[in-house]
Amino acid sequence: MSTPSEPAPFAFPHRHLLGIEGLSAAEIEGLLAAAEDAVALSRQVEKKRTTLRGRTQVNLFFENSTRTQSSFEIAGKRLGADVMNMSVGNSSMKKGETVLDTAATLNAMRPDIIVVRHHAAGAVALLAQKVDCSVVNAGDGAHEHPTQALLDALTILRAKGRIAGLVVAICGDVLHSRVARSNIILLNALGAQVRVVAPSTLLPTGIERLGVEVFRTMREGLAGADVVMMLRLQLERMNGSFVPSVKEYFKHFGLDGAKLAYARPDAVVMHPGPMNRGVEIASEVADGPQSLIRDQVEMGVAVRMAVLETLARHLPNA
Amino acid sequence: MSTPSEPAPFAFPHRHLLGIEGLSAAEIEGLLAAAEDAVALSRQVEKKRTTLRGRTQVNLFFENSTRTQSSFEIAGKRLGADVMNMSVGNSSMKKGETVLDTAATLNAMRPDIIVVRHHAAGAVALLAQKVDCSVVNAGDGAHEHPTQALLDALTILRAKGRIAGLVVAICGDVLHSRVARSNIILLNALGAQVRVVAPSTLLPTGIERLGVEVFRTMREGLAGADVVMMLRLQLERMNGSFVPSVKEYFKHFGLDGAKLAYARPDAVVMHPGPMNRGVEIASEVADGPQSLIRDQVEMGVAVRMAVLETLARHLPNA
Amino acid sequence: MSTPSEPAPFAFPHRHLLGIEGLSAAEIEGLLAAAEDAVALSRQVEKKRTTLRGRTQVNLFFENSTRTQSSFEIAGKRLGADVMNMSVGNSSMKKGETVLDTAATLNAMRPDIIVVRHHAAGAVALLAQKVDCSVVNAGDGAHEHPTQALLDALTILRAKGRIAGLVVAICGDVLHSRVARSNIILLNALGAQVRVVAPSTLLPTGIERLGVEVFRTMREGLAGADVVMMLRLQLERMNGSFVPSVKEYFKHFGLDGAKLAYARPDAVVMHPGPMNRGVEIASEVADGPQSLIRDQVEMGVAVRMAVLETLARHLPNA
Repeated sequence: MSTPSEPAPFAFPHRHLLGIEGLSAAEIEGLLAAAEDAVALSRQVEKKRTTLRGRTQVNLFFENSTRTQSSFEIAGKRLGADVMNMSVGNSSMKKGETVLDTAATLNAMRPDIIVVRHHAAGAVALLAQKVDCSVVNAGDGAHEHPTQALLDALTILRAKGRIAGLVVAICGDVLHSRVARSNIILLNALGAQVRVVAPSTLLPTGIERLGVEVFRTMREGLAGADVVMMLRLQLERMNGSFVPSVKEYFKHFGLDGAKLAYARPDAVVMHPGPMNRGVEIASEVADGPQSLIRDQVEMGVAVRMAVLETLARHLPNA
Repeated sequence: MSTPSEPAPFAFPHRHLLGIEGLSAAEIEGLLAAAEDAVALSRQVEKKRTTLRGRTQVNLFFENSTRTQSSFEIAGKRLGADVMNMSVGNSSMKKGETVLDTAATLNAMRPDIIVVRHHAAGAVALLAQKVDCSVVNAGDGAHEHPTQALLDALTILRAKGRIAGLVVAICGDVLHSRVARSNIILLNALGAQVRVVAPSTLLPTGIERLGVEVFRTMREGLAGADVVMMLRLQLERMNGSFVPSVKEYFKHFGLDGAKLAYARPDAVVMHPGPMNRGVEIASEVADGPQSLIRDQVEMGVAVRMAVLETLARHLPNA
Repeated sequence: MSTPSEPAPFAFPHRHLLGIEGLSAAEIEGLLAAAEDAVALSRQVEKKRTTLRGRTQVNLFFENSTRTQSSFEIAGKRLGADVMNMSVGNSSMKKGETVLDTAATLNAMRPDIIVVRHHAAGAVALLAQKVDCSVVNAGDGAHEHPTQALLDALTILRAKGRIAGLVVAICGDVLHSRVARSNIILLNALGAQVRVVAPSTLLPTGIERLGVEVFRTMREGLAGADVVMMLRLQLERMNGSFVPSVKEYFKHFGLDGAKLAYARPDAVVMHPGPMNRGVEIASEVADGPQSLIRDQVEMGVAVRMAVLETLARHLPNA
């Protein structure tokens, strides 16, 4: 195990992390290498570094996400930051104020980093324009979720030793998925061969333009895959356009042992969580030997530590 | 007053604290002695020790409990831990995920200690089997609430100088009370003589097997008692089986000055809080000279500090 | 910019900050000077002092206020305190317990400072009588909100170089406003000339006794004003007595460019937030060159740091 020393700085000329789009392969690889150090740190008894001592990190969640917020909170605290959670669900910021007023208000409190989750695509980038500090996109509508893509890449890298040349099948509700979008961009940037597998009703039009091959059946889409990445069926985002019968959906697109057998024998299985067991994934697979689902969560904390530390190097006065 | 130095280690060969059941008298006494040091620490201006620096403590509450969660939060922070609260009330963890998925997810974030409150008896022990870190039961259904029993014991010990040989009357809603259960086990282990006083509808069948004497009237049950421990009437847990008239209940089982006079003149009064004033206890007694109710809250923080520090000595890599 | 060293102590013989009423001009000026140091600290990269290391600060909010709570949380953390938030909205403390039981319970956990927001005037002072630590009033009903008045004063002082002799017009919903009340008392103590401008239905009877001149039109009230302080129209506190048409209200009392022109050309505009844009203030003014609304938020953190540090000097054992 590497010692949890501070990672070597690398060139990252961005103040914010708003998406994977716009990052170079070298920048992505720099973040992944920094995250490796963070993995080692979190496995120590004293899992603490003081890189962010005296910095103020605000987790501004307009949408509930216990997992993602917890992951960022632990990441910031392990780096010594002062972390403040703002769940905007029951605040005047939700009722009356605009996102821009919220941004201006928060900015005046002189935070160093704001981590934002918002239900609308583009809201995080808009907010980033109005503040002096760094902003991390923790998911904006169906747009991007860059730290999820980074943690998925780190998980694959540690399991397979490389990303270039791998066949990755992203399966399920691609239409509503920022996770799919960020992953496609990142995996393409690092030279993987990316496929999406979904019923046509769950595919955004023009998805091919992102550089993916589209499949309509698991049998075809999983053939020869090194990585099978399942997506959460986001029933709560479906507005009547397509309400699949869960049983029918599972039969055709749910990953069970039989469908997994279409992939390479050493294929790994991933899911961003929280899982709908028996909907998009069977428990035999989720808890089986090919599953990396728990590793993804661990890599999530590490990747977020790397992102926070990397952005902190670019603070105005740093 | 003892100096708030770190307490001397004692033998405690358990990774978790799931209940009082299974602890030896020596282990209980070790925890109580460690808590004495924590009492002194919390009375200093700088109430801080770094025993848990770099450790991650997660408070995972499936059931709301502002008091207990606050007590654990203050305890962890005074020991220098990074403390994260997860109130699962409005999270996907409550909606879709199983307790075991939640456990596995949390575990992957590499916490050192998880403090769990759950509405179902046994859920905390189940969760503890699935994680690599220490687990503290902060109340599971009607099963156990070990830190409550420890803080009650510490309160009695400081007031009376001993526990062995004391007559302790636990009064009221024994049926729904994990507090009663944990206290009975602990007080018996340390040699007290334990009684329960309740109407038959609020007594679990077979309670005698725990080694208590059962009384149906306060007059008989309190005669000669050194300690009168009142329980909260948990109206919210009663499913129609027994809905007492509050006025009638108070008349027969509510502790007022007249009923307290049945006990020894130097008897002390306790209540785990929050109190239903005028239901199970009268204000004249709750706020009177024999009440130790505020001391219990202070001892709560101290006992939780002792538990966190003791378990931290048993962490995998410690 | 001054260096963010610890400010020089000044005489402040109060254990609590319950209101501006009762503070001398010298005490107010001492707090404002201390806040100046805190402004400088928050503009550093490492915005951290250890004045409150090992102290426990509890933010006890019986009423939601994301902004004020966040401001106090950041303030405490930048001073090294252990900060615990207690939002009492969904707790037994709201349901069953009295404010005094809550106070006694919290007090037993040995906090050093409790910051309290409560919907009832006087509740914070009542709570302060029952605890051994310092209490800061973060807003009690329509009574006082002393840190808001202090941050407003600091904002004015930095913009105008003085407070004595300035003409300050406080406009709008004076009836429901603790902000107006605290500001009137503070500004009078420091020698400003204070006016209130409001429709008669939004004026408390006897407001003149606080030493203000009353105006019924913006044209008259703003003539010659150095500072125009707008208040939030608290529609949620109006019980049928006066439900203004928002459009009508804006026409007569909403601050737009035309009405602002009645004031001095170098007049500054303030608002405690959150703003109802288009109700009491137009965006052209809120976001215009005369607006100090964002400065107020920054000064909020600084003033709260000064208050916490000042009260900490008076702790029983300090």
